Amino acid sequence: MNETPGEETLDPEDWPQLRALAHRAVDDALDYLQQTRERAVWRPTPPEVVAHFHAPLPHAPQGAAAAYQDFRDWVMPWQMGNTHPRFWGWYMGNGTAFGALGDFLAATVNPNMGGGNHVANEVETQVVDWCRQIVGMPPETGGLLVSGASMANFVAMAVARNHAATVDVRAAGVASLPRPLVFYASTEVHSCLQKAIELLGHGSRAFRRVAVDDSYRIDPEVLTRAIAADREAGAQPCAVIGNAGTINTGAVDDLAKLAAICHREKLWFHVDGAIGAVVALAPNHRQLVQGIELADSVALDLHKWLHIPFEAGCVLVRDRKAHRATFSLTPDYLKHAQRGLASGADWFSDYGLQLTRGFRALKVWLSFKEHGLDKYGRLIDQNIAQAMRLAEFVRAEPELELLAPVSLNIVCFRYRGAGGSQAQLNALNEELLIRLHESGVAVPSYTTLGGNYCLRAAIANHRTRGADLSLLIDAVLRGGRELARQP
Amino acid sequence: MNETPGEETLDPEDWPQLRALAHRAVDDALDYLQQTRERAVWRPTPPEVVAHFHAPLPHAPQGAAAAYQDFRDWVMPWQMGNTHPRFWGWYMGNGTAFGALGDFLAATVNPNMGGGNHVANEVETQVVDWCRQIVGMPPETGGLLVSGASMANFVAMAVARNHAATVDVRAAGVASLPRPLVFYASTEVHSCLQKAIELLGHGSRAFRRVAVDDSYRIDPEVLTRAIAADREAGAQPCAVIGNAGTINTGAVDDLAKLAAICHREKLWFHVDGAIGAVVALAPNHRQLVQGIELADSVALDLHKWLHIPFEAGCVLVRDRKAHRATFSLTPDYLKHAQRGLASGADWFSDYGLQLTRGFRALKVWLSFKEHGLDKYGRLIDQNIAQAMRLAEFVRAEPELELLAPVSLNIVCFRYRGAGGSQAQLNALNEELLIRLHESGVAVPSYTTLGGNYCLRAAIANHRTRGADLSLLIDAVLRGGRELARQP
Repeated sequence: MNETPGEETLDPEDWPQLRALAHRAVDDALDYLQQTRERAVWRPTPPEVVAHFHAPLPHAPQGAAAAYQDFRDWVMPWQMGNTHPRFWGWYMGNGTAFGALGDFLAATVNPNMGGGNHVANEVETQVVDWCRQIVGMPPETGGLLVSGASMANFVAMAVARNHAATVDVRAAGVASLPRPLVFYASTEVHSCLQKAIELLGHGSRAFRRVAVDDSYRIDPEVLTRAIAADREAGAQPCAVIGNAGTINTGAVDDLAKLAAICHREKLWFHVDGAIGAVVALAPNHRQLVQGIELADSVALDLHKWLHIPFEAGCVLVRDRKAHRATFSLTPDYLKHAQRGLASGADWFSDYGLQLTRGFRALKVWLSFKEHGLDKYGRLIDQNIAQAMRLAEFVRAEPELELLAPVSLNIVCFRYRGAGGSQAQLNALNEELLIRLHESGVAVPSYTTLGGNYCLRAAIANHRTRGADLSLLIDAVLRGGRELARQP
Repeated sequence: MNETPGEETLDPEDWPQLRALAHRAVDDALDYLQQTRERAVWRPTPPEVVAHFHAPLPHAPQGAAAAYQDFRDWVMPWQMGNTHPRFWGWYMGNGTAFGALGDFLAATVNPNMGGGNHVANEVETQVVDWCRQIVGMPPETGGLLVSGASMANFVAMAVARNHAATVDVRAAGVASLPRPLVFYASTEVHSCLQKAIELLGHGSRAFRRVAVDDSYRIDPEVLTRAIAADREAGAQPCAVIGNAGTINTGAVDDLAKLAAICHREKLWFHVDGAIGAVVALAPNHRQLVQGIELADSVALDLHKWLHIPFEAGCVLVRDRKAHRATFSLTPDYLKHAQRGLASGADWFSDYGLQLTRGFRALKVWLSFKEHGLDKYGRLIDQNIAQAMRLAEFVRAEPELELLAPVSLNIVCFRYRGAGGSQAQLNALNEELLIRLHESGVAVPSYTTLGGNYCLRAAIANHRTRGADLSLLIDAVLRGGRELARQP
């Protein structure tokens, strides 16, 4: 069994050539990030560019240099824009150059984080524990890195379900439960929790959406009554989901109060901290999320306010045993050995849906070390202060209207000019937003509150300066006036 | 609202310094990959290295250069080893240098692939369609990129469930189904399908594991009888899962036969092609997976036999409407606009669990263009030929024993020497495997077939040469003889 002539590989035939290309890519990438502010935030992709992506499966090679050139010509110039200082759409992070380098290094060494005895698992274990320290949960808490909060919430709901089940739900299914499980959150809860509860087989009718107060925070009295009513009706209350930063307005539920209710009612207390869990790092605002440390599980996103490049989320679960009991399944070919690569005490694949898992921990580990967490905390305070100032400006300007209180970094407002019906103002602001995008000046997004269409600026952006928000206000006033003048 | 003094950012204070560091990282990474063959495949992480990962949350910054140095000192040298030509453990890909660069570029532009009108969605749409062309499904087929086959299988099972449900299962849950849904696969099916079925709320008892023949392929007669028996008993057969390459032995079920059964019985036909779907690219072996194109859904992995760096999987679903109906949930803040960034016909987040999604499509797009798919096909043939030759060598060597037929690229064998009881041979081979790992010469993994512990070489490796397999055989014989001499 000797060398076979003609054996091929995906390694480059010419390493120095690929090396030169990689250096060029690094320069282009750093130029791209360094010059972000000089570009339009967003611009539409021209149809002739889109047409380029309908070519059939490439059977023949074009080589790395030509493939890279296609990226430079057709992909790099038509981006979403969330690296830009004036991108405040939905809720995203910007990423960083060093974070991107982390993904390159992770893909270079390319370990599989499903399990085994290799050092990358130590990196992830450490990063998960750092996340635990951020929210202040006790040392016995475990968890794992996931694609983002949708998956983190899914994992937590699966554990809550199996932990509450009075039968072996893994074997017999949810139809075997003597009483249906019921879940609670405010009406402002993120849609991914409904998705999780549907996928887990409970049906969205088992998900009670509890009324909020004027600040869009869950009403604990209504919650308590809902729990009692469900027990009365023969259902089994399972979990309460607290919001640490709702997607619409950034509202933070009274987490300490929810923890107390869950303690009293013996329910699983989960916090969706996709947006706001990391506020625990911010010296001026950490009191907002007080009580998060009492949760049974927390979902958090590192690719939002901590600006780790996509994807990086984390789920923390206080009861490691319950967590493992939900996901562990060890077939013969994965049995852990005593020594060798197949050893290792705890395999991450026993704690989530994925078996093969990438080394997303590395970019987090590198970034946390690069900046230190105190700086992230200051940047969170900085964004909240920017949002507060934007809200003040809106309040002070009679042609603008603030549509929700600002407690975090999300500002919902609209142009009202001389006023008009709800339908008129909705249509005006909807068109105004599109023109803002098309102008390339700023990208807020939108939501609807009480039937009112809002411009919504979610300032989770380490590149935003005070002056950027002035540009937004100017553009909104200019665009609003122009639209108000039209018939 | 002017510039506020003291505003901070995560951007480097000194761009040229970060640029120099990035160039250094590129050189180190390319050295790492170019010199892979010269290293031990694997070596244990020393305790003093592990200890390094117990430091608390870093509050203070250490800067990019020092963080990178920590990676070089503590992380890079202690890897899993699956970049190495003699890594054949579990079932992994090696990755490539250009693929790693793709992850860097993706994280640099950092778009969110949940939706919106930006060109990265065109890249993913094209890559998904290329995957469809690989397996030969019809043009109306949709899909999305996911973390890997565990998630691809989960998505497919969710769609199959909701499509089969005679009630609104998203609203009312699986407990509302008049007849419980039942799923079928062979006893060799991957554990992630059990995980999916459990998580979806059916319970593993709803998952029928059908007997296999001597080649570890599902027995269609037993399957047909099981379906009939379930109908008889009042259950509702939902889906049959065909294996295109089982994890234990690489067996490929008769997919055309399974498609015919599903057609006749009106069941969802899903193929778990994590390992073998891409065999459709291989000129000498594509007939093995004939029938895959008839599936309602296919799960495939691009980070296995196509060597895209982790994570890259794909799910294909023929019925786009059923796919979307399972996952779509559009809250106010995600309503699609007519123009601007928030427009775009189809949002990927409506087809899976994740809302925020990274740009994993880019590394696939770049790699497919770099090499062309014909080359991937030849490399798959090359690995299968290597496995066949390894099996021949095992058959020809009286001290070794082949424990399963080799139909693809997985070889299960053991050292038997002069023979012994099952318990003795199991203990010997278990220790032999650990010593192989510890020697750094080769990393196969293991499984158990009929109670026999096997060494298991899964040759999905674009760097493996014929001579590497000779080294494996030599090391197994040497190690086996040594152990056989011991009391």
